[in-house]
Amino acid sequence: MDFDVQFEQYRQRVERGLDELAPPAGTRPARLHTAMRYSLQAGGKRLRPVLVLATAEALGSKTDALPAAVALECIHTYSLIHDDLPCMDNDDLRRGRPTAHKQFDEATALLAGDALLTLAFQLVARHYAGQPALCTALTRTLADAAGSEQLIGGQMEDLLAEKKADATADDLEFIHLNKTAAMLTATLVAGGLCGGATEPQLATLRDAGRHLGLAFQIVDDILDATADTATLGKTAGKDARAGKTTFVKLHGLDASRKFAREHSAAALAAIGRLPGHTTFLIALVQSMAGRNK
Amino acid sequence: MDFDVQFEQYRQRVERGLDELAPPAGTRPARLHTAMRYSLQAGGKRLRPVLVLATAEALGSKTDALPAAVALECIHTYSLIHDDLPCMDNDDLRRGRPTAHKQFDEATALLAGDALLTLAFQLVARHYAGQPALCTALTRTLADAAGSEQLIGGQMEDLLAEKKADATADDLEFIHLNKTAAMLTATLVAGGLCGGATEPQLATLRDAGRHLGLAFQIVDDILDATADTATLGKTAGKDARAGKTTFVKLHGLDASRKFAREHSAAALAAIGRLPGHTTFLIALVQSMAGRNK
Repeated sequence: MDFDVQFEQYRQRVERGLDELAPPAGTRPARLHTAMRYSLQAGGKRLRPVLVLATAEALGSKTDALPAAVALECIHTYSLIHDDLPCMDNDDLRRGRPTAHKQFDEATALLAGDALLTLAFQLVARHYAGQPALCTALTRTLADAAGSEQLIGGQMEDLLAEKKADATADDLEFIHLNKTAAMLTATLVAGGLCGGATEPQLATLRDAGRHLGLAFQIVDDILDATADTATLGKTAGKDARAGKTTFVKLHGLDASRKFAREHSAAALAAIGRLPGHTTFLIALVQSMAGRNK
Repeated sequence: MDFDVQFEQYRQRVERGLDELAPPAGTRPARLHTAMRYSLQAGGKRLRPVLVLATAEALGSKTDALPAAVALECIHTYSLIHDDLPCMDNDDLRRGRPTAHKQFDEATALLAGDALLTLAFQLVARHYAGQPALCTALTRTLADAAGSEQLIGGQMEDLLAEKKADATADDLEFIHLNKTAAMLTATLVAGGLCGGATEPQLATLRDAGRHLGLAFQIVDDILDATADTATLGKTAGKDARAGKTTFVKLHGLDASRKFAREHSAAALAAIGRLPGHTTFLIALVQSMAGRNK
């Protein structure tokens, strides 16, 4: 089947899952639930949740991976809401729409982010209660990836790096590995866990996630330096104006493109070592490392 | 054994647990970990984690309840850090010390709160991995209590109630049940789960938690109206100055004291129905509902 058609089918399953598993907008507190749904429904390609489903199904999953996929998207969305807040990146625009604190207010955005992070663990605990070993492994995977030594740690170091002119390649690798690669690794591992992956297969998925994450983040830096705001759906050229240390600033455009290609190839090589029907998964990883928005 | 001596022994176990289970201050990102420890080590009586340990041990626990106790305190501390932020209650003082965003900055406080919420789930998944059914039940208990329909929902409605002059008794009950009682119920249930409670015993703990939470919150309102800042260790009389609807404002001091006594008695009656060595647990619940700071 054509990749785009298949991707769209996966994406629509994710949209339905998000709609069904997020708290109904009408239930109390309605303002909070409306804000959570506003940010969840901001669109985007749903790369992470599609990646969960595609990984689980490549491995021949018998478990419904959709709640895990939605949980991953909840964590991703929470991190965007909090990153956009005035005390963080102070962004007014996200995916072409007002950010949560612009659409609602800061307090509501803060709480909606908190609630989406929490919802991820509610979903995992609720939907995999009948498979407690899987539930425990998913909880640990998500919590560690989202924790102070990975996602939040990467965000903290990113903020600190913005304030100093001399952030090093080492600082930048810490940020990319933790702010981006950790959650993409958790995405692949969550799919693997739902798909019944063996420990060696989980190790392969971690390897793929690390390379995919680095490729993805370097492409992000390249796009910020080269694409325009309309194409990105978020403010472009922000990094350079903020004097922020990026891969592009440290290594230049050509070397950055080379790094992105190398990490992309390594991610694909790892995925290629998995058994099962990996055709779609490989095409998906390829599209993520070579995306233009 | 004397209640105060026994309480102090429990409290010291909690302090050691917090010290051991929180990320070391020196590990990267050091600023984030320092902020997490700053807020965790702000003292307080550690009522919630002591309640977890006391409940588990009253029921004859064979499982170490300390990681669950620390997880509960992490969630409580995260909620205080975020509540104190300028876009929320904008408080400068917490337990007699500068709040996290005053001591560090807003971004660090935001992330430290996020990281403490996440740490709760990391601790549960890590320390109860060998008992996946317990891990799953604890994760669900904590996540549901902290979620958009309980803790965060209560906080959202509390913020909305502050903005309208005519918050009703119904609004106030929603806020108290969700902002306060839900986490105290989760505390008792977490202790019960670690102690191997049966389903009827867990139902009794939920009943006790609901009454304890209401008593605790009404006492809080009474103290805000009657105690001074030095005694409270936080700004007193804030509710009245903000025109905030409280139990005291709605029902007066005498009726509030009567409600607090009734809920306290109901909580104690429920605890009294549990088997095991509940002497300390009963004294603890009594002290929480009758506390003066």
